[in-house]
Amino acid sequence: MTLKSSMINPYLDIRRFYKPKLQFEDYIEGIQKGNRTILSQAITLIESEREEDKELASRIIQFCLKKQTSSFRIGITGVPGVGKSTFIESFGLDLISKGHKVAVLAVDPSSEKSGGSILGDRTRMENLSKNANAYIRPSPSKGTLGGVARRTREVILLCEAAGYDRILVETVGVGQSETLVHSMVDFFLLLILPNSGDELQGMKRGIMEMADGILITKSDGDTLPKAKIAKADLERVIPYFSMNYDFWKPFVICISSLNKTGFSEFYQKLNLFENNVKTNLHPLAKKTYFEYKREQQSLYWFEQTFMENFKDYIKKAFQKDYEKLKQKIINKEITPFEASENFLKIFKEHFYEEH
Amino acid sequence: MTLKSSMINPYLDIRRFYKPKLQFEDYIEGIQKGNRTILSQAITLIESEREEDKELASRIIQFCLKKQTSSFRIGITGVPGVGKSTFIESFGLDLISKGHKVAVLAVDPSSEKSGGSILGDRTRMENLSKNANAYIRPSPSKGTLGGVARRTREVILLCEAAGYDRILVETVGVGQSETLVHSMVDFFLLLILPNSGDELQGMKRGIMEMADGILITKSDGDTLPKAKIAKADLERVIPYFSMNYDFWKPFVICISSLNKTGFSEFYQKLNLFENNVKTNLHPLAKKTYFEYKREQQSLYWFEQTFMENFKDYIKKAFQKDYEKLKQKIINKEITPFEASENFLKIFKEHFYEEH
Repeated sequence: MTLKSSMINPYLDIRRFYKPKLQFEDYIEGIQKGNRTILSQAITLIESEREEDKELASRIIQFCLKKQTSSFRIGITGVPGVGKSTFIESFGLDLISKGHKVAVLAVDPSSEKSGGSILGDRTRMENLSKNANAYIRPSPSKGTLGGVARRTREVILLCEAAGYDRILVETVGVGQSETLVHSMVDFFLLLILPNSGDELQGMKRGIMEMADGILITKSDGDTLPKAKIAKADLERVIPYFSMNYDFWKPFVICISSLNKTGFSEFYQKLNLFENNVKTNLHPLAKKTYFEYKREQQSLYWFEQTFMENFKDYIKKAFQKDYEKLKQKIINKEITPFEASENFLKIFKEHFYEEH
Repeated sequence: MTLKSSMINPYLDIRRFYKPKLQFEDYIEGIQKGNRTILSQAITLIESEREEDKELASRIIQFCLKKQTSSFRIGITGVPGVGKSTFIESFGLDLISKGHKVAVLAVDPSSEKSGGSILGDRTRMENLSKNANAYIRPSPSKGTLGGVARRTREVILLCEAAGYDRILVETVGVGQSETLVHSMVDFFLLLILPNSGDELQGMKRGIMEMADGILITKSDGDTLPKAKIAKADLERVIPYFSMNYDFWKPFVICISSLNKTGFSEFYQKLNLFENNVKTNLHPLAKKTYFEYKREQQSLYWFEQTFMENFKDYIKKAFQKDYEKLKQKIINKEITPFEASENFLKIFKEHFYEEH
């Protein structure tokens, strides 16, 4: 056996494993220049669960948060098979042709279980993913749904700082994910298959009420008549829901990605909505509906997150007491209200009263 | 001026002001015998906000909680003018004629503002209120909606211990009150006027989805055709909502309190529902749907109440920090998530870590 040069040359080993670590300034410069590689690295940093990455990630987010941008965030939901990818590819390319830069993000509740993402997959949006003005990022494959949603909100800020002014956040219409996406976007779009009512039964409660607009996909060929019935059905149902805005009634439009029909009507409506929310002042605030909603969303996430954190913390710190009280309730030894009072009492005993 | 005997006879004064105070045993005996005066006094005790009444009230509730009863709790909601009182009078008298004892309670969100209750008013249910097997109690006129709801849940236990086996809890279909009522009853009934869709717009989101059954009131005379259209409309809409039970699709029945039509169909459906939930086993528990739901409701009230309590307590204890963080979020100095982490950090500093 002879010695190979690599085994005695320390430089080769160092070069092989040495990857220059980006500094705060490198990230900021790269993001602001719209450098996709650095944007991706910054997102990876944010998604990292390593303790030592936290501070830098936080500084980057903080910086992006303060940047003034003119973005518009669109949530897109619909059951698997509704044609989300095909729609997003068409829609994204159209937005780019109108001069926009498009980021596609995903909040995927299934990634938690499968460890892999079914959404935001670049191979399903071939032309869009090749376009220099599009940035596609799949849902992180690790973490809880809440954690994924939280990071997505932060990734939005980074993409906006990188010049992407149309943010599409896709999710599937099951479980909790649309509620989370709904509270991070300016417009919420629901895609529906051209079958009438029955098929919607499995859909999560309240999802129809969250929609600012509904598109019936695959409205072409033999399915067109079905799509038209579905449209009439939906338009009959919409008045039964209370409205999100005084000035806005959710639209229902039949589209075909195949024939490219319905898209121009959709853009018209979407522009009208954006104009409305960005110019009309909210009666409760000296702000536009757009600004007010974003502010409310931020405060909502604050309340939600800290209540979640507290709940987890308190339940853990007092797990035995908590479980004991629950069992007492089930055994009908105590009412829920007394249990709650007891729990607060236990908690207060461990709290510096002088505060 | 001469002295009157009453001025020198101490007994008279004592007798005038002396009202024997009921003891725990008196309450329990009275309630179990179905003594309405004592039941009312016990409810007043529970509704009392005086610190010295708390312990006795709590002991009485505890006792009633453990009593096995065969009650069925029905929530009834609908906008003012839908005919709730007329319906409850008919329905209540029918239940009594079938051998039941009926308690009518109310959770009235308006009582908070007006200081008086518009629901559960005895004068609006003249015949029912005179019946020996009916007990009508209006909504307490003091306290927050949450407090009123909480007490109503406790009053239900007292009424059940007093032998009332059909508990009707009425509320108006606005604001938060139906959600609260929904989570304390076994069956949730929605009353609707015989107008079609448009008029439902003002209705609270999600209220249709909570209903286990819908009655269209005033379905008589000239309005009958309208009522039938409304029924068809509603039946078209119902499949768009996800279901509360695998085995149950909410019904829509046209009724007329005037002509007494629709009632027998309603009873049939209600009995079917009760039978179903009381015999079918819930797949997640070795319990009937009925038992499982009541247990879940109790745990839900526990979680809700303690989180409310904690939230109030923490926000108050750290009000300055809380407001400062909110302002920072609005000023975009900090993300909601960082604010939340900071808030938890501040909180932990005031907490005995050794716990």
